[in-house]
Amino acid sequence: MTGRTPRVVIVGGGFGGLAAAKALRRAPVNIILIDRSNHHVFQPLLYQVATSVLAPGQIASPIRGLLADQENTSVMLGNVTGIDSASRHVIADADEKKGLRIEYDYLVLATGATHSYFGHDEFAPFAPVLKSLADAELLRNHILKAFENAEIEDDPERRQALMTFVLVGAGPTGVEMASAIAFMVQTTLRKNFRRIDPRSARIILVDMGKRPLGTFAESLSEAAKQRLLKLGVEVRLEKPVHSIDAECALVGDERIPSKTVIWTAGVAPSPAGKWLDCDVDRAGRVRVRNDLTIHHHPEIFVVGDTATLDQGGRRLPGVAQVAIQQGQYAGKSIIRQITRKPPLPPFRYFDKGDLAVVGKGFAVLQSGPIKMSGYVAWLVWALVHIQFLAESSLRISVFFQWVRTYFSGHRGDRLIIEKHGNG
Amino acid sequence: MTGRTPRVVIVGGGFGGLAAAKALRRAPVNIILIDRSNHHVFQPLLYQVATSVLAPGQIASPIRGLLADQENTSVMLGNVTGIDSASRHVIADADEKKGLRIEYDYLVLATGATHSYFGHDEFAPFAPVLKSLADAELLRNHILKAFENAEIEDDPERRQALMTFVLVGAGPTGVEMASAIAFMVQTTLRKNFRRIDPRSARIILVDMGKRPLGTFAESLSEAAKQRLLKLGVEVRLEKPVHSIDAECALVGDERIPSKTVIWTAGVAPSPAGKWLDCDVDRAGRVRVRNDLTIHHHPEIFVVGDTATLDQGGRRLPGVAQVAIQQGQYAGKSIIRQITRKPPLPPFRYFDKGDLAVVGKGFAVLQSGPIKMSGYVAWLVWALVHIQFLAESSLRISVFFQWVRTYFSGHRGDRLIIEKHGNG
Repeated sequence: MTGRTPRVVIVGGGFGGLAAAKALRRAPVNIILIDRSNHHVFQPLLYQVATSVLAPGQIASPIRGLLADQENTSVMLGNVTGIDSASRHVIADADEKKGLRIEYDYLVLATGATHSYFGHDEFAPFAPVLKSLADAELLRNHILKAFENAEIEDDPERRQALMTFVLVGAGPTGVEMASAIAFMVQTTLRKNFRRIDPRSARIILVDMGKRPLGTFAESLSEAAKQRLLKLGVEVRLEKPVHSIDAECALVGDERIPSKTVIWTAGVAPSPAGKWLDCDVDRAGRVRVRNDLTIHHHPEIFVVGDTATLDQGGRRLPGVAQVAIQQGQYAGKSIIRQITRKPPLPPFRYFDKGDLAVVGKGFAVLQSGPIKMSGYVAWLVWALVHIQFLAESSLRISVFFQWVRTYFSGHRGDRLIIEKHGNG
Repeated sequence: MTGRTPRVVIVGGGFGGLAAAKALRRAPVNIILIDRSNHHVFQPLLYQVATSVLAPGQIASPIRGLLADQENTSVMLGNVTGIDSASRHVIADADEKKGLRIEYDYLVLATGATHSYFGHDEFAPFAPVLKSLADAELLRNHILKAFENAEIEDDPERRQALMTFVLVGAGPTGVEMASAIAFMVQTTLRKNFRRIDPRSARIILVDMGKRPLGTFAESLSEAAKQRLLKLGVEVRLEKPVHSIDAECALVGDERIPSKTVIWTAGVAPSPAGKWLDCDVDRAGRVRVRNDLTIHHHPEIFVVGDTATLDQGGRRLPGVAQVAIQQGQYAGKSIIRQITRKPPLPPFRYFDKGDLAVVGKGFAVLQSGPIKMSGYVAWLVWALVHIQFLAESSLRISVFFQWVRTYFSGHRGDRLIIEKHGNG
């Protein structure tokens, strides 16, 4: 740092990484943002790609495009495999180059999290997760094909298994997926088949806990549950999942024949904790100090779902808002260090509130003392989510697709995209 | 056909198959349309998906959705493997059911065509074709990744190989892809990289013939060629391709190091000729009679690219218009047969003209005596293509994307969608 421009490496182009990059846009630094995807995904709407409402391109933007005008930043498509914190290098594989070493003066790790099978990794082939655009496209293909197969199935039991959808995990993603599938079978698909009635599909939401949306107030969990039941979703609470295979899920002592199980439970953070060989919590999240750095490394920031930090005795939740605020904080902290100004006060999360949608025209909302459920909460949900899309053109196209889906049941992207052999 | 409703099986949901189904919408028949995709693709715009301008959902519509209100028609997702014309059955595999036998009274085969490697099938892994949405997404991933890899490549020769794009076949698809890549490197990608200049990409269009767009008038071929050169596309004519591997293409006696070769030449029809064991031309297209049926089988119609038919001493071209008019004719013929009316006069193709686009704001057009090239032809091209999209909502979204791409270079779907391992 003697004379040359300090280099900031940001790993991850999600909410946290992008916020850090933008906070540094006028700083006298060279930034390299590394991500294994070429796009930033608006994860809260992934379930709408999986259920054919939105196209992948409506919730994703090329990271290069988002940062094209930020001249101090370059973007690299690469898969980080390790960190050498002694010599300050990130180690990454690109498509054709392995073991690239990228030097940093400051490092921001914003690599996110995925779902965890709680030690049952054997479920993975039969119960995919929903974390990337590729996941969402695979699930979309799978759900649409289940109805295609049901249409030509003569055996009534197999037909019902094809039309049975099990969601494991009743957090926001599970609740949103379950109600989105319910909405799809009752509207879009209704007139499209001749032999099956898509409305006879079973949608089963399973959780180990006592209530859906466990991070919300109890009254909102109850409202969400009632709404799910009204939509025809079967809710199984306090039930462990013992086994999942290609034909069925064993939930508590109930055997559910199903060709589609979707895993929306648990949190498995990225391997950043292993790269750093540092203090992690039970789920593997990096324990950061209240300035978001790790012990002995004031130059390494860990933000978003990759990190864990308590505030007021409670762990900060794994939501986009936390990642964004932490990314911004990390960026600003780096500017302070470079300009030799006094450090920022400890990071404090400002909780604007939490939202989850339960099908068409219904959401639950809590923000400070406000707790509400129903149509108004859903309007707030829709506005907030459109607002946070990364590009204005996406806001417009998502808005019009939602209006159309709301009134006509039309889905924007009901495509099974697969490679066929020739002939 | 004594008493029960006649059953029409249509194989293929492209232009020909869909036109046949629609021509039969009020007929007293039961229709089963079988396709191995769940969507109808507007093939003339596939190259815009491959070059990130349009999203897959903007040029494709679920076949079920298109035919939802046509109550005499059911749709089946399946891969036809054979035809038993003696007992009148189509044999098809579905996702989980193999060897399904579907009875027909009338059969319409509209299974399209793909490109042919002229006996060099060993080129296939290194020179993909562009015939389906999956092909277009793979090409999009590949082209975008080539620039990503170039950005981190230090070796200048390898960098240039990553930024060299070879199109084999200077028909409409090759010309359109070449000019679309040229437009992309000069606009959209220009400011997105820090180490490479995308404008230094090489785009090379190769053909065995004397001129590009060989089915057009010579003056239009020349106009297209001049435009391609102006766009920076290198045109290699009368050059055979001797070999293609992962590193390079041998074109005539020129060795072109390239990581991206795209095959847009030749025609290989679907295996319908083999299924029927009937008379085919040298390329394998079914020789149909002038009522589009085959010898001894007045109940079997073959339409579009799957068939070959001469008119006025010339083979009808493999374009969407021929497929649509033939599909309509087949549908109407079936109605005549069922209602025991005299047969239609022989099929006659009404040629409305032909169009090919050469980059932004330039197309060639010939229609009867009219031959023109330039901006006005491009406007006609844009209007005609928007007009023929299957759904009005797609017309609107494609129109707005084109306006945006035209003025700002913005592309709607610049995504590399791939599954990553966790961690």
